[in-house]
Amino acid sequence: MKRSLVLFLLLSPLFMWGQTSDAQQLKSIYEQSLTNGKSYDWLDYLSNQIGGRLSGSLNAERAVRYTKKELEALGLDKVWLQPVMVPKWTRGVKEYAYIESAPGKITPVNICALGGSVATPEGGLRSGIIEVNGIAELQTLSKEQVEGKIVFLNEAMEPTYINTFKAYSGCANQRYAGAMEAGKLGASGVIVRSLNLRLDDLPHTGSMSYGDLPEADRIPAAAISTKDAELLSTMIKLDPTISFYFSQKCRVFPDVQSYNVIGEITGSEYPDEIITVGGHLDSWDLGDGAHDDGAGCVQSMEVLRLLKETGYTPKRTIRVVLFMNEENGLRGARKYAEVAEQKGEKHLFALESDSGGFTPRGFSFECRDDQFEQVLSWKPLFEPYLIHLFDRGGSGADVGPLKNGETVLAGLRPDTQRYFDHHHAANDTFEHVNKRELELGAATMTALIYLVDKYGFGKKVKG
Amino acid sequence: MKRSLVLFLLLSPLFMWGQTSDAQQLKSIYEQSLTNGKSYDWLDYLSNQIGGRLSGSLNAERAVRYTKKELEALGLDKVWLQPVMVPKWTRGVKEYAYIESAPGKITPVNICALGGSVATPEGGLRSGIIEVNGIAELQTLSKEQVEGKIVFLNEAMEPTYINTFKAYSGCANQRYAGAMEAGKLGASGVIVRSLNLRLDDLPHTGSMSYGDLPEADRIPAAAISTKDAELLSTMIKLDPTISFYFSQKCRVFPDVQSYNVIGEITGSEYPDEIITVGGHLDSWDLGDGAHDDGAGCVQSMEVLRLLKETGYTPKRTIRVVLFMNEENGLRGARKYAEVAEQKGEKHLFALESDSGGFTPRGFSFECRDDQFEQVLSWKPLFEPYLIHLFDRGGSGADVGPLKNGETVLAGLRPDTQRYFDHHHAANDTFEHVNKRELELGAATMTALIYLVDKYGFGKKVKG
Repeated sequence: MKRSLVLFLLLSPLFMWGQTSDAQQLKSIYEQSLTNGKSYDWLDYLSNQIGGRLSGSLNAERAVRYTKKELEALGLDKVWLQPVMVPKWTRGVKEYAYIESAPGKITPVNICALGGSVATPEGGLRSGIIEVNGIAELQTLSKEQVEGKIVFLNEAMEPTYINTFKAYSGCANQRYAGAMEAGKLGASGVIVRSLNLRLDDLPHTGSMSYGDLPEADRIPAAAISTKDAELLSTMIKLDPTISFYFSQKCRVFPDVQSYNVIGEITGSEYPDEIITVGGHLDSWDLGDGAHDDGAGCVQSMEVLRLLKETGYTPKRTIRVVLFMNEENGLRGARKYAEVAEQKGEKHLFALESDSGGFTPRGFSFECRDDQFEQVLSWKPLFEPYLIHLFDRGGSGADVGPLKNGETVLAGLRPDTQRYFDHHHAANDTFEHVNKRELELGAATMTALIYLVDKYGFGKKVKG
Repeated sequence: MKRSLVLFLLLSPLFMWGQTSDAQQLKSIYEQSLTNGKSYDWLDYLSNQIGGRLSGSLNAERAVRYTKKELEALGLDKVWLQPVMVPKWTRGVKEYAYIESAPGKITPVNICALGGSVATPEGGLRSGIIEVNGIAELQTLSKEQVEGKIVFLNEAMEPTYINTFKAYSGCANQRYAGAMEAGKLGASGVIVRSLNLRLDDLPHTGSMSYGDLPEADRIPAAAISTKDAELLSTMIKLDPTISFYFSQKCRVFPDVQSYNVIGEITGSEYPDEIITVGGHLDSWDLGDGAHDDGAGCVQSMEVLRLLKETGYTPKRTIRVVLFMNEENGLRGARKYAEVAEQKGEKHLFALESDSGGFTPRGFSFECRDDQFEQVLSWKPLFEPYLIHLFDRGGSGADVGPLKNGETVLAGLRPDTQRYFDHHHAANDTFEHVNKRELELGAATMTALIYLVDKYGFGKKVKG
């Protein structure tokens, strides 16, 4: 398009009307969400009536039934369950651990098993302990140094990163691969510093993997609270010969049947062009999964409700997907992408909310330059809502499998400062979600989905 | 300045070096605040060792002594107390209130006296109650309709405003002037809906005034929690003849001596040009005043510490001012401006933090166009810290009296969504302040003070 034509369009009454109309539609969306929103009530039910929704658990099953029923009540064009087999891991009775600084002189500490870990031997595991500053340092050790010991991976999240997710990715590998790497060196167990920027008493669970390690070499892995990690580190420095004891009764069961919960408004003009918005319905078991990712689920459901409620008729098919098993398997996301591929479905856009129900700051996009340029042209519409962040980078784990170079992927980016205080811990609970912040996030997502539906990505808006 | 010269300067190595150096100074400031900050520890002490700091109270006195001692420990060039007489109002024993829907059939509700209110008569006040939607509706009523009754001002904060401070200003007048206006119409008392966007059980206090109303016409005023406001409204609709009872024992004492706490680093080049940064040291008495405004005080103290700690030598005089009596009198702020005027002090810039210790989003400036243009030229330096909001508008109550058309005034603008959940209520407490959010605010303030000190406002940076 020529510059002069662009200029003409920019200044034409038609364009001005278009802008005003978009601005008004956004206003309606935000007002509806803030005055008559359903997201907070849904989250209340998911958190307080159901609770933690670990894959394969009864609660996960109840969450599937509840959200399906709620989507049906919205009067969408279709609501269905997409079957997917998921892992089933259970924590069992509460874990117990202590530092033994002299025979019989014990200091109890707060731990929790990592998701997927094996149990400790009957009666628990007691042995010497060796501290390393994350996986990198572990890999410098010899088999002789590690054999028979518990490895304590104590790498702290980097506090100077403004984006706390960057600090998380920086050391999440010690949780995910710590047991695998220590197991290769003959360790008897691993204790991992919780991925929490704050000093407190709560251990934070999360997924881990043994990779291809034979069953016999799989060692139990647990997270320790940040305060107790500091304590343990100090005690090891004072006396490197101290022992550590822990007991956990977790078990892996055969895979069980579960579901992605899906609902859609069929597009009025381009029903074959699909826009999905989603979060993951499963959660860890320690809290009630309000931020991770009850918030993302109810916000995604709210997107479809807000579009209907504000009287907008989508041209394209708008689909909400509540993915099962993001936390310990990503099976739901893979199944969704696999079925989409089989059916030859064309996904135009996939948006995920999985960074907590905090004040929205913007979005992060995985897309081509021309697509990003188009997205940036919408940015001024979001300024009245204090949405300033239109970044490129990661989108989300659940929309990731849809990546194909054409589909635009995006993640909602809320304020990140408090997120890791709650992430995968017992305090990821409903009372830590602020109603307005949750509703602003839902409205922000709806606004973007509206613009993508209305304008698509095909036509470049800048010459 | 000519365009070509501007371009030359923009592209010159000197300019690039200047920018890099500023970027590095900002990085040092943020890193120091996030890894080695003192603001959170100071706030812990102010909140948990001292607590609510109502003007004229022993706690306010203790806070003066504590902060003076802490400023002295920073090794500033000067630390002093600036005497100011402040009002002394006390709440007395806990208030008690109920709705009486039939003789003897009572429903207790949560209230608290508004700051400055008179007590109810001995034995409490019981009378009929009439609901109005704020001051505007009250003023449409006749003396006959109101006389002898309790007036219930039930205007809710507007939930669709994204900036919650706008929603607050929109109906704060019912709290401030409700008793004065109802008193003129012969009411026996006023009950005001708490200025809280959330529905909960906590009453929110705040200042009120009787204006010139004679003593005899001064009626007791209390705030009711938002949930109980909804209940009361429903019950009045069901039966307009119900009664309301409340009892409060608050008292006004003669003014007492108190202080603004002031410390400064004397400027190395322009000691007579003063840059102040501050918050207010007094608070309401229901919580511990952690957000309002313990946060602003410790952030302001931290500004001077961070400048020293990062090795920066200010050219101008940087002064921290912890103002006394913002909440119910603004006496400290007026005294500070009065003394500055008497001494002929030149204030270049005055920054206030009094909007809670939440994630900083930016600043709001009260200044001339050319000054704002200069401020905007610094905005890109703040982007790595997700500071996007450089607005024009109000600054802060405490720096307000310094307004003279020359001094640039500014207020830190944190995320506002949670603020009125806590404002002036029993849950304005330390555990609701996030350490990183507080520290990011302190660093953001320090960064701006650094830039103002280094560049001043005299020279225009754009041609």
